[in-house]
Amino acid sequence: MTFQAPVRDIMFNIEHLSAWQEVSDLPAYQGIDQADVQAALEGFGRFCDEVIAPLAAEGDETGSHFDGQRVVMPAAHVEAFRQYQEMGWQTLAHPGEFGGMGLPRAAGAAATEMLNAADLSFGLCPLLTDGAIEALLLNGSDSQKDQYLEQLISGNWSGTMNLTEPQAGSDLGRVRSKAEPQADGTYAVSGTKIFITYGEHDLTENIIHLVLARTPDAPAGPKGLSLFIVPRYLLDADGNPGQRNAVNCVSIEHKLGVRASPTAVLEYDGATGFMVGEENRGLEYMFVMMRAARFAVGLQGVAVAERAYQHAVAYARERVQSRPVDGSSKDAATIIQHPDVRRMLMKMRALTEGGRALAMATAGFLDIAHHGTDAREATAMAEFLVPLVKGFCTERAVETASLGVQVHGGMGFIEETGVAQFYRDARILPIYEGTTAIQANDLLGRQVMRDGGETARRFAGMIADTAAELRKGSAAAQGIADGLDAARLAFEDSLAWMLETARQNPNAAFAGSVPFLMLTGNLAAGWQLGRSALAAEAKLQQGEDAGFMTQKIATALFFAQHILAECSTEKTRIVSGSASVLDAGFDI
Amino acid sequence: MTFQAPVRDIMFNIEHLSAWQEVSDLPAYQGIDQADVQAALEGFGRFCDEVIAPLAAEGDETGSHFDGQRVVMPAAHVEAFRQYQEMGWQTLAHPGEFGGMGLPRAAGAAATEMLNAADLSFGLCPLLTDGAIEALLLNGSDSQKDQYLEQLISGNWSGTMNLTEPQAGSDLGRVRSKAEPQADGTYAVSGTKIFITYGEHDLTENIIHLVLARTPDAPAGPKGLSLFIVPRYLLDADGNPGQRNAVNCVSIEHKLGVRASPTAVLEYDGATGFMVGEENRGLEYMFVMMRAARFAVGLQGVAVAERAYQHAVAYARERVQSRPVDGSSKDAATIIQHPDVRRMLMKMRALTEGGRALAMATAGFLDIAHHGTDAREATAMAEFLVPLVKGFCTERAVETASLGVQVHGGMGFIEETGVAQFYRDARILPIYEGTTAIQANDLLGRQVMRDGGETARRFAGMIADTAAELRKGSAAAQGIADGLDAARLAFEDSLAWMLETARQNPNAAFAGSVPFLMLTGNLAAGWQLGRSALAAEAKLQQGEDAGFMTQKIATALFFAQHILAECSTEKTRIVSGSASVLDAGFDI
Repeated sequence: MTFQAPVRDIMFNIEHLSAWQEVSDLPAYQGIDQADVQAALEGFGRFCDEVIAPLAAEGDETGSHFDGQRVVMPAAHVEAFRQYQEMGWQTLAHPGEFGGMGLPRAAGAAATEMLNAADLSFGLCPLLTDGAIEALLLNGSDSQKDQYLEQLISGNWSGTMNLTEPQAGSDLGRVRSKAEPQADGTYAVSGTKIFITYGEHDLTENIIHLVLARTPDAPAGPKGLSLFIVPRYLLDADGNPGQRNAVNCVSIEHKLGVRASPTAVLEYDGATGFMVGEENRGLEYMFVMMRAARFAVGLQGVAVAERAYQHAVAYARERVQSRPVDGSSKDAATIIQHPDVRRMLMKMRALTEGGRALAMATAGFLDIAHHGTDAREATAMAEFLVPLVKGFCTERAVETASLGVQVHGGMGFIEETGVAQFYRDARILPIYEGTTAIQANDLLGRQVMRDGGETARRFAGMIADTAAELRKGSAAAQGIADGLDAARLAFEDSLAWMLETARQNPNAAFAGSVPFLMLTGNLAAGWQLGRSALAAEAKLQQGEDAGFMTQKIATALFFAQHILAECSTEKTRIVSGSASVLDAGFDI
Repeated sequence: MTFQAPVRDIMFNIEHLSAWQEVSDLPAYQGIDQADVQAALEGFGRFCDEVIAPLAAEGDETGSHFDGQRVVMPAAHVEAFRQYQEMGWQTLAHPGEFGGMGLPRAAGAAATEMLNAADLSFGLCPLLTDGAIEALLLNGSDSQKDQYLEQLISGNWSGTMNLTEPQAGSDLGRVRSKAEPQADGTYAVSGTKIFITYGEHDLTENIIHLVLARTPDAPAGPKGLSLFIVPRYLLDADGNPGQRNAVNCVSIEHKLGVRASPTAVLEYDGATGFMVGEENRGLEYMFVMMRAARFAVGLQGVAVAERAYQHAVAYARERVQSRPVDGSSKDAATIIQHPDVRRMLMKMRALTEGGRALAMATAGFLDIAHHGTDAREATAMAEFLVPLVKGFCTERAVETASLGVQVHGGMGFIEETGVAQFYRDARILPIYEGTTAIQANDLLGRQVMRDGGETARRFAGMIADTAAELRKGSAAAQGIADGLDAARLAFEDSLAWMLETARQNPNAAFAGSVPFLMLTGNLAAGWQLGRSALAAEAKLQQGEDAGFMTQKIATALFFAQHILAECSTEKTRIVSGSASVLDAGFDI
């Protein structure tokens, strides 16, 4: 089954949801217009469809292998990565100053989604490299930028994030790796890092590890971590990979999914490292990189959902089974005609497009936060939305991939059909880069409590405005407004309860943190689909692309009636359900 | 991680939910008391814990293999199956007349759950044999019973169900296999059957295939199917396996889960078959067998959920990560102390125990339906509940297994941890023996519409009675009553809408059939947990086993607040969401 990058829908999202006008007026994006973005995404979409998507099943079957010293990638991946480098796709959303195309974040998000839809395992290498680029752009010294950025942006080298240790997963304060200062200003980094995605591979001529470790006199806990660049090969005088550094792959994991992506245990044994920024500020820098990575992992969720949806629709159009339930024919029908199959497909589509809409709107806020002149509100909104992109899109990806298996019936359980892989691959997404609970803690603790609910109320206010606009539209638009208003009220009630409860009884508040994240994620995605419907109704009136626009409205209405309807349940869980979480024992 | 069969909770369910008094008074079960059941289940529980559970991971890794002629099972499975036969565990819930222990269905259900929790792949062989036994008990001739039942009940031979063909999955009317009558009264059966669980293996000395096929003059469609016994080895004059029959395994599937269980493609090439019952009534007979099999697959759902829950609780007790959110300690805590981990564990437990309670209550109705003197109401209730057991428990098993991975964080994604297997294994459960949509069609079309909602209203009435009882109890009991009443009202509204809609607009009704099944399943399981809470409160007053009883009540309350709360969402989907399912197009 072939994959087709959803460029049409992505461009609709960029045009109508990503604050395109405001973003493209920013000094950082002068001279870039929508046609540039569309041309780049169409080209990259073709590459994803034709070169990457066909590798996914084979990469899953073959996997990456560790021969005791090196990690050997599937041969087809090596060749595809060579083409990816040659065509310069890593450069897409990075600054022109270091050789990038310099497109806005929404375009970068679109590229991340398309590549990961084609193959999550392949997409992880560029995704981590993007994160390393982001970290160096923000916190690297000028000479570090000169040494590493062009090679990373060209895709010649790849980047990694080295946070986790056996005793330090979600809790980075427990990191033990050491960094001893050397006479030449470098550091000798020692320790064991686990779960390092693309920590070792043969796709690029160098790998730039970004590593959290402690200097000898650093305070205990999270405020004693510094960030280090540890290249696999130290650079020679010309800036080329030279001497092998003292970092070695010990093993790679045998995983449920993303099997072509090597997940390494790395041993640092006095490896030469270069401090990034200031001592003891590593976690702070890492947070910036993590925010970018969390956003990207949310896009991976949209990606795998899109891939699963395309597969399911194609199968449902072909598979003939059982007569229509309405007795309209004595012959068996294609299963796409059966109401419950339509329901499953619509749920998959609504969750996919809702996730994409949320992510694209967030990309707009991120760009304004980053490059705008008065960025306070945009920054707060971007920080509010990122845990939703990560939490909502990845949880929904697991659900969507599972529905994709269900649409296939017994064939879905056979590995050769290909959809079981999406179900396996998707399962890591709500875990890595911070579990859903960690996202929910970020949302509740940092984005809601810290400003006393100000950003959350602004968010609700914008949604009320969108609903008011929708009320002026068609019957479908009014149906969407009904769903949005009911969900917003559930959110406001839950928010009030959280603000009241969190300080006096934090356990009760955090017992509802994930339901609160899911409620808010539903609402945020439904809101953006409401904005899509407004844009689509305007386009319809102009007589533009009626088929596409009608379906955008239908998807938004389905989301309002089937997904936003969950918000009342989440509210009940939050405001009435904390004691039954906390009081239970676990002794039977 | 070891498994411990939950005999304590199972006995509580048998005693309080399975209509034990009425069932044990049935003539079929004269002389059997609870102590007999408990002794049998404790013995079998130990066998599951010690012999079967340790095989699951290895069986998954090794898988079953087809060498071109025979299917080779993992060696450890062969040895364990020999012990299973020797100890006579297949006999547990089958009639004494053919060598069975003759225990009631609730005990049989408990055994099915425990064995499948230990290893779903292993459990499938006995499960299919149980189905074949059921079919022959009900519809076999006396000589067929004499020839096959003792050997099947002893576990010496195994049974299979041969329904599906490449063009006939859910829609058995499309079955094409042929059965040509022969001069000696036998039939020559030809055709290809796919997805045949344990269709070929080396665990038993014979395999008794039950096969749907058409006689030459049979009418087209589902009313032209007859049922045939096709033994792998024809019986000789002494009733022992003799000449090889013309049925051959062509291949086995490469599957997402249950990998030690061979799923065969069988080629029948004029194989000798013996008709069961009357010509053209095969589907009717198969339905009886399918009802038993659907009930058993629902139990597989409870089983894998229990296994996943035990793993998750054990990990959460050991894994130390992050400080408590309430600031009560500066040290990192075991993750079971974190509110969201408790929420996930409670959700797993509530879904597992709710499914078990529903299944055990259904077992009681099934026994009364089968052996009682005035069985009309019990039969209708059993038929109403079976699609819920299958649909609800299997969908929830996927969710519970997925939560089990989440509790483990990154370790959950590593295959060696063992919990990814449950996530893979569980995924077949909402598909085989009729997908969730097929269960929902059965519920809505046969169990609700056919009697104009009479059984459904009786079901709601019994729930109202339970809620009224709960209102006389503790604060927790009253909280459970609140949840039950709200969910029952959502059910009654949805039922009224369905009864009004289904005839005039079947597509609209069936667009909500799975939400209706999930609403009803939630309510049925919550009801049975409400009955558990009533029983537990009574026991508490008698001072019996306070720890266990308190936790039963806590689980019921959690279910009421976190799971029953979903019923309002399902109602919205049903009564307001059908047009947005049906009107959507799939052209973008």
